[in-house]
Amino acid sequence: MLRLFRYNWQVRNEWFDWCENVSEEELLKKRTGGIGYILPTLYHIVAVEYGWICGGIQEKAIEIPSFGEVASLRQVRELSERCHAELAPFVYDWNDSLEDRIMIDITDEGEREAHAYGEVMRHLIAHEIHHAGQLSIWSRELGRQPVTANFVGRGLFDN
Amino acid sequence: MLRLFRYNWQVRNEWFDWCENVSEEELLKKRTGGIGYILPTLYHIVAVEYGWICGGIQEKAIEIPSFGEVASLRQVRELSERCHAELAPFVYDWNDSLEDRIMIDITDEGEREAHAYGEVMRHLIAHEIHHAGQLSIWSRELGRQPVTANFVGRGLFDN
Repeated sequence: MLRLFRYNWQVRNEWFDWCENVSEEELLKKRTGGIGYILPTLYHIVAVEYGWICGGIQEKAIEIPSFGEVASLRQVRELSERCHAELAPFVYDWNDSLEDRIMIDITDEGEREAHAYGEVMRHLIAHEIHHAGQLSIWSRELGRQPVTANFVGRGLFDN
Repeated sequence: MLRLFRYNWQVRNEWFDWCENVSEEELLKKRTGGIGYILPTLYHIVAVEYGWICGGIQEKAIEIPSFGEVASLRQVRELSERCHAELAPFVYDWNDSLEDRIMIDITDEGEREAHAYGEVMRHLIAHEIHHAGQLSIWSRELGRQPVTANFVGRGLFDN
């Protein structure tokens, strides 16, 4: 489980680096599909991971700023780092006994849904990879080489 | 591990269903990014999973048809089903003792690269989700609702 989170965190930071060479106008330009914009996609990835782990599983009273409150590359990256620092210990301490523990999610429609922790964790893994795949299309539309999605070759099995 | 493979297999079949309502012309139209075409993306996902597991890890003498040999939705779907039937037992029998076993990959450049089985398996998980994310953008370009990428809500933790 941890290794796919580490993969996503590594890829996410490479997307932030990629953004450094793209104008703010392009980062905030409306595009087709997904979240519809590059920088809000990265914000969304961060907010969803933090919301499910710290808000949902850990039941902390968290506050997630709206995108409008952090609408620059520097601020979204800082938000990612803050959220990561808070949620990473849970991921590093993950063990199989947590798989089937149950958390209750309140959906946007106000309904209560039960999810196993292991289900939530895999949802987050797939969620970030999915959105990074979308970024890769928009990257090519900009004529830029996307961040590689390869898991092999990242040294994620060296320790 | 198995659960993320089952997720991908379920999502892949939903993309095949999605393709049923799209013209062959659109499935084979050049697009920006990724593999550059919808149906060849699905072919690529199938070929890569089969190549790494049956050819790479299991060291079977496999033959993967070129896309040109299976260039219709029906044929790619049949290829997916044949490859799945052959590789799924390995995934279902997966256990943690296989994580660090080493396989040797011969790259397109003819170089030998060592990979842990666990590294290859996570590579395949991320690979398919990544390309499905790209399909979701092209789906919106066609004005169609994409297959949901949600892991939660698929009943993947019910058994």
